[in-house]
Amino acid sequence: MKNEILESRIVVASYELDSFGHVNNAVFLNYLEKARGDFMTLKGLRFDDFFKWRRYPVVGRAWMEFKYPAKAGDKLLVKGVITKHTAASFTLRYEVINEENRKLVLTGETFHVFVDDNNRPSRIPEEFYEQFIANNKET
Amino acid sequence: MKNEILESRIVVASYELDSFGHVNNAVFLNYLEKARGDFMTLKGLRFDDFFKWRRYPVVGRAWMEFKYPAKAGDKLLVKGVITKHTAASFTLRYEVINEENRKLVLTGETFHVFVDDNNRPSRIPEEFYEQFIANNKET
Amino acid sequence: MKNEILESRIVVASYELDSFGHVNNAVFLNYLEKARGDFMTLKGLRFDDFFKWRRYPVVGRAWMEFKYPAKAGDKLLVKGVITKHTAASFTLRYEVINEENRKLVLTGETFHVFVDDNNRPSRIPEEFYEQFIANNKET
Amino acid sequence: MKNEILESRIVVASYELDSFGHVNNAVFLNYLEKARGDFMTLKGLRFDDFFKWRRYPVVGRAWMEFKYPAKAGDKLLVKGVITKHTAASFTLRYEVINEENRKLVLTGETFHVFVDDNNRPSRIPEEFYEQFIANNKET
Repeated sequence: MKNEILESRIVVASYELDSFGHVNNAVFLNYLEKARGDFMTLKGLRFDDFFKWRRYPVVGRAWMEFKYPAKAGDKLLVKGVITKHTAASFTLRYEVINEENRKLVLTGETFHVFVDDNNRPSRIPEEFYEQFIANNKET
Repeated sequence: MKNEILESRIVVASYELDSFGHVNNAVFLNYLEKARGDFMTLKGLRFDDFFKWRRYPVVGRAWMEFKYPAKAGDKLLVKGVITKHTAASFTLRYEVINEENRKLVLTGETFHVFVDDNNRPSRIPEEFYEQFIANNKET
Repeated sequence: MKNEILESRIVVASYELDSFGHVNNAVFLNYLEKARGDFMTLKGLRFDDFFKWRRYPVVGRAWMEFKYPAKAGDKLLVKGVITKHTAASFTLRYEVINEENRKLVLTGETFHVFVDDNNRPSRIPEEFYEQFIANNKET
Repeated sequence: MKNEILESRIVVASYELDSFGHVNNAVFLNYLEKARGDFMTLKGLRFDDFFKWRRYPVVGRAWMEFKYPAKAGDKLLVKGVITKHTAASFTLRYEVINEENRKLVLTGETFHVFVDDNNRPSRIPEEFYEQFIANNKET
């Protein structure tokens, strides 16, 4: 059975452009966050669950390489895959693709650590592990 | 025949929240802009057309009343209607509704003036008038 | 003795522009929020105090009229004054001025209601009243 | 004589926080952009110069490592240094430091390529080279 995968469709909004008419680099980190959120929703998780679990995923590193500009109205597909995880952390690798011309817009990676209310690293919540990570590993 | 109407569906992203866990007030102006953009797309217009026409819609006034908070993952419906227009300007009134509990989240209004390359008021581009305004007037 | 007043200096950043090269309308609500934050700091209050008091100011209405565009590098002065308050709410009126050419960039107004952890209206925290409101009323 | 250096002071605004009460990761890319802009201003350059030169710096890669969270009201110092450049590109390395507790908040790097109106790589504008790059190289 094919696993559900982490992917998200985004239509570039005019307020996400900079003066050069391209999506500003910082906005792509928002797109990656949106893709993670959409995948949580798909797996029956909610953003509020982090507060219920009292464990919060903090971005420890982010890396992006910009290949092709995105403009207002562009239809983008964000795809992500877990490439690595430990008891407390996980790494996602992404591709963003322009769905009309199939150009690769961006490759990127984010590394996340779960912390508790005192900002100390803590185990990945079990439900998050099962829904978000176990089903989404690179094969 | 029923006209196509200005409406847009938005899922609240986690990066749009403030520390109180609610969508920040400024973000709603983005949502209204997104709804206008989606309606342009629906009518076959593109954001780049403004540069082709060399006439640009500038927000002259904006007004919002916040009725009910929006949180991460909320599914919102933004509905807009043209309430007034002149040769160079138009006014849109909006409602944002939470699609799950049907609560009214926001009412708002934006007033737009077209300007030319010298920032002087200028006529609404004909194609924009026909596609965006004529079909979307309040009845 | 002249009271300390709510004013804040902002230099427009390039990432705050839209494709027309102007500060996007939503960004001005951020500027108004920044001005409120700077005034809190000036009066010895901190954003975290809201969590200590367990009372949070929610924006109930916002209104802006845009008079003159702002561009990258513009030096703006945001001035605010409390025009009204009740036991649970207050209203601020703003002017944003371009400090180089003295043009009026924006006039606006925000209305804020304090709510408690259950999102119910609640009294303005005493310390906030004394520092932020009592000293800053329109005369 | 000590060169003027690329550094920028930022006070974290409440609208830059996420629900965890920390500055969202994407916002730091804005801070780095602000630091570049402030340095341009210091050297007598303006954002509009890119349009005059018809050459535009595009972010080709960005990398950030988050060391310590930033919260509302934090006073941050962003420091940058050019670590490398070619005829058409340059690389900046950054540190963001909390000015009160001297903690290292972030290290990062951005790589920029100049493009022309057709999005083709093109030489660094001479004035930009002299003001922004020549004076700011790592020693």
